[in-house]
Amino acid sequence: MSRFFSKKYAALEPYTPGEQPQDMQYVKLNTNESPFPPSEAALKYAAANTRQLNLYSDPVQEVLTKELAKTYGVGPDQIIVCNGSDETLNFAFMAFCDDGMPAAFADVTYGFYPVYAQQNRVPYVEVPLKEDFTMDVETLMGLRATLFIANPNSPTGVALPLSEIERLAAADPDRVVIVDEAYVDFGAESAVGLVNRYDNLLVIQTFSKSRSLAGGRLGYAIGQKELIGDLNTLKFSTNPYNVNSLTAAVGIGVLRDPEYMKKNCEIIKSNREYLVAKLDELGFRTLPSSANFVFTTRPGTDGAELYRALKEKGVLVRNFSKPRIKDYERITIGTREQLDVLIEKLKEILN
Amino acid sequence: MSRFFSKKYAALEPYTPGEQPQDMQYVKLNTNESPFPPSEAALKYAAANTRQLNLYSDPVQEVLTKELAKTYGVGPDQIIVCNGSDETLNFAFMAFCDDGMPAAFADVTYGFYPVYAQQNRVPYVEVPLKEDFTMDVETLMGLRATLFIANPNSPTGVALPLSEIERLAAADPDRVVIVDEAYVDFGAESAVGLVNRYDNLLVIQTFSKSRSLAGGRLGYAIGQKELIGDLNTLKFSTNPYNVNSLTAAVGIGVLRDPEYMKKNCEIIKSNREYLVAKLDELGFRTLPSSANFVFTTRPGTDGAELYRALKEKGVLVRNFSKPRIKDYERITIGTREQLDVLIEKLKEILN
Repeated sequence: MSRFFSKKYAALEPYTPGEQPQDMQYVKLNTNESPFPPSEAALKYAAANTRQLNLYSDPVQEVLTKELAKTYGVGPDQIIVCNGSDETLNFAFMAFCDDGMPAAFADVTYGFYPVYAQQNRVPYVEVPLKEDFTMDVETLMGLRATLFIANPNSPTGVALPLSEIERLAAADPDRVVIVDEAYVDFGAESAVGLVNRYDNLLVIQTFSKSRSLAGGRLGYAIGQKELIGDLNTLKFSTNPYNVNSLTAAVGIGVLRDPEYMKKNCEIIKSNREYLVAKLDELGFRTLPSSANFVFTTRPGTDGAELYRALKEKGVLVRNFSKPRIKDYERITIGTREQLDVLIEKLKEILN
Repeated sequence: MSRFFSKKYAALEPYTPGEQPQDMQYVKLNTNESPFPPSEAALKYAAANTRQLNLYSDPVQEVLTKELAKTYGVGPDQIIVCNGSDETLNFAFMAFCDDGMPAAFADVTYGFYPVYAQQNRVPYVEVPLKEDFTMDVETLMGLRATLFIANPNSPTGVALPLSEIERLAAADPDRVVIVDEAYVDFGAESAVGLVNRYDNLLVIQTFSKSRSLAGGRLGYAIGQKELIGDLNTLKFSTNPYNVNSLTAAVGIGVLRDPEYMKKNCEIIKSNREYLVAKLDELGFRTLPSSANFVFTTRPGTDGAELYRALKEKGVLVRNFSKPRIKDYERITIGTREQLDVLIEKLKEILN
C-alpha cells in the first residue's frame, strides 16, 4: 500500500479469483467455465459485424441490447449490458445499498459479495444457510436490506424455487431483491419472467457460463426501466464505453445461435449426472446441483489436501478456506474426457 | 430515478459522451478517434493469439503487461491495464482522493473529472486556466490536492512542458500528480521517464487515440509499484477480469507494430498543420495543438450554431455548452479527405 492510498480502503481485502494458469497444462475444473468454445456461427457473425475498432464502441450498445430484449421478451430500456456480470453487481451494490440500507446475502455464496460491500463501504449481513446449504427463506422475509441471491447458489450449486424468489420480492416492496443467475441455464428457474410484476426485482445474468464467453466479459441486468436507469446513471459516471466492440459483436453472434447453447447445457447436465454417480462410488457426498459444477465432500478426507493432491496430478478444482466449507471441493463440469481424468486421479489419490 | 436509488447519488450528473451515431453517415470529427484502423499485422497477431474465449481472461494480463513494460522500459509491476483509461482514471479518483485530499484540475479540461469526483463523493477544486488556456502552474504549486492534469489538455490541445510536470511533482511529495496522457503521442512530452524519480507521479495512457483502438477499450497506468498496487487493490475489489481476451490480444499485436502507429501520428500532425492553415484563411483562431484535434473559434460566429450547421451538412464536431468555451469547436484531425469535406462545408456555411 502506498502512503497516498485513501484510508477509506485501508482494510479492503480484494477478491481472490480462481487460478487462471496461462500455461494450459491443467485439466481446468476450477472456475466454472464452459469446456466448449463459442459456436462457429457466433464467431463468423462477429468477424463480419464488428464495428470499426478505431471508433469508440456504442455506449448504449443498441444492437446487442435489442437482441437481448428480443431473447427475453422485455423492452430494450429494461436491460443494461456491462463488462461482465461482476461490473453489473458492483453497480447494484453502489445503487441500492448505503448506510440506511445494508446488503444481505448468504454466509456461503459468491465470495465477491462481501468485497463489493466493503469496497462500497456499505454495511452487510451474512445470513447463515441451513445445515444442508439450502436457504431458510423465512429468515429473509422481514429483513430490511437489499438482498443478493445467487440462484443457483455458488459454490453449492443449490437452487431456490422461483416461488421462493417471488415470495421474497413480494414480502417487502421497499427493498430490492437482486437475483444473480450466472448459472441459471443449467437447471434452475429464471426470475426474468417476474420483473414486470415486481419493480423491486433485478435479475443479473452473464455470457461467461452457458454461453461460453468468459474471456469476452459480458454481463447484463434485466429489470424495470427505473432500476436499469439507476444502473445507467452509475455506468455513465464511471465508464460509459464499458462494453467493447469485439465483445459486443461476439455476444450478438452468440444470441443468434441459441441452439448451440441449449445443446451444450444438455451435455453439461448429462455429464453432471455422470460425475455425481462416479463421486458416489468413491464415497463422496455431493449437494444437489442445478449448476455447471458440483460441491462435494468425502467424510474423513481433508479438502485442502485433496485439492493439492489433484493439482499435483494436473487437475485444478476449487477449494475454499472458509471453515464451514473447507472440506468441500467445487468441481466444474467439463467434458466427459476431463471428468474421466479427474475420476482416475481421484482413484489414484484415494487408494 | 427509482425510489431505491441511494441518496448518495441523487444529485449525480453523468458524463455525456460525444455522439456515437451508429449509421456511419457522418464525417465524424467529434470524439478524437483515429481515422485509421489498427494495422493488419496487429489484427493478424490477435487472430492467431487470442486466448480461448470460453476461459476467463488473465486477470493480471501478464503477456500484455510485459509487452507494455518493454515498450516503456519499466517493470511489469509498474503497470496496470484497464477497460479503457476511463476505468483507470476512476480507480485513481477512488484511490487517491477523499474528504481529506480533494481532487484538483483545470476549469477547462476533460469533462469526466468532475463526474468522477462527484460519483466518488470527494471534494474537488477547479483551477482556472489563463486567458490563453495555458495552465498557471504557480497556482498549483502549493495546493494540497491530488492533481489531475490532461497533457496535452482536452478540449484545448495545449501541452504543458515536461519541466512543469516535474516541478509539480517535486513541489509536494505528499500529493499525487496524475498526468492523463491520452493524446501525448501527437506532439507532447511524456512524463513516463519521470516515474522512477517521483513516487507520487502516475501516468495514464490509452490505446484509443494514436493506437487506433477506441472500440477495444484498453488503457493503462504507469507509476511506481506502490501506486500501481493501490490501483490493483481496487481493481480486484471491483472487476478483476476487467480486460477481456479479445482486446488483450489486439493490444499486444498493436504494441508489436510500433512503426504503424508512428507513421499514423506523423500523418495526423501533418494534417493538423494543413487544417490550421485552412482555418486561418477562414478567419478562425486556433489554439496551438499538440493533440489529434484542434480547438478553434471564429470571432463573431456562434459556436453552437456552427456545430449545428455542420451537423446538418453531415460533419460532426464537438461543441461544449460551458460558457467559457461555448464559441469553440473541438475538431478531430481526420484524413485529408475528411478535412477537405469539413473545409468545404465551413465555406458553404460562412459564405
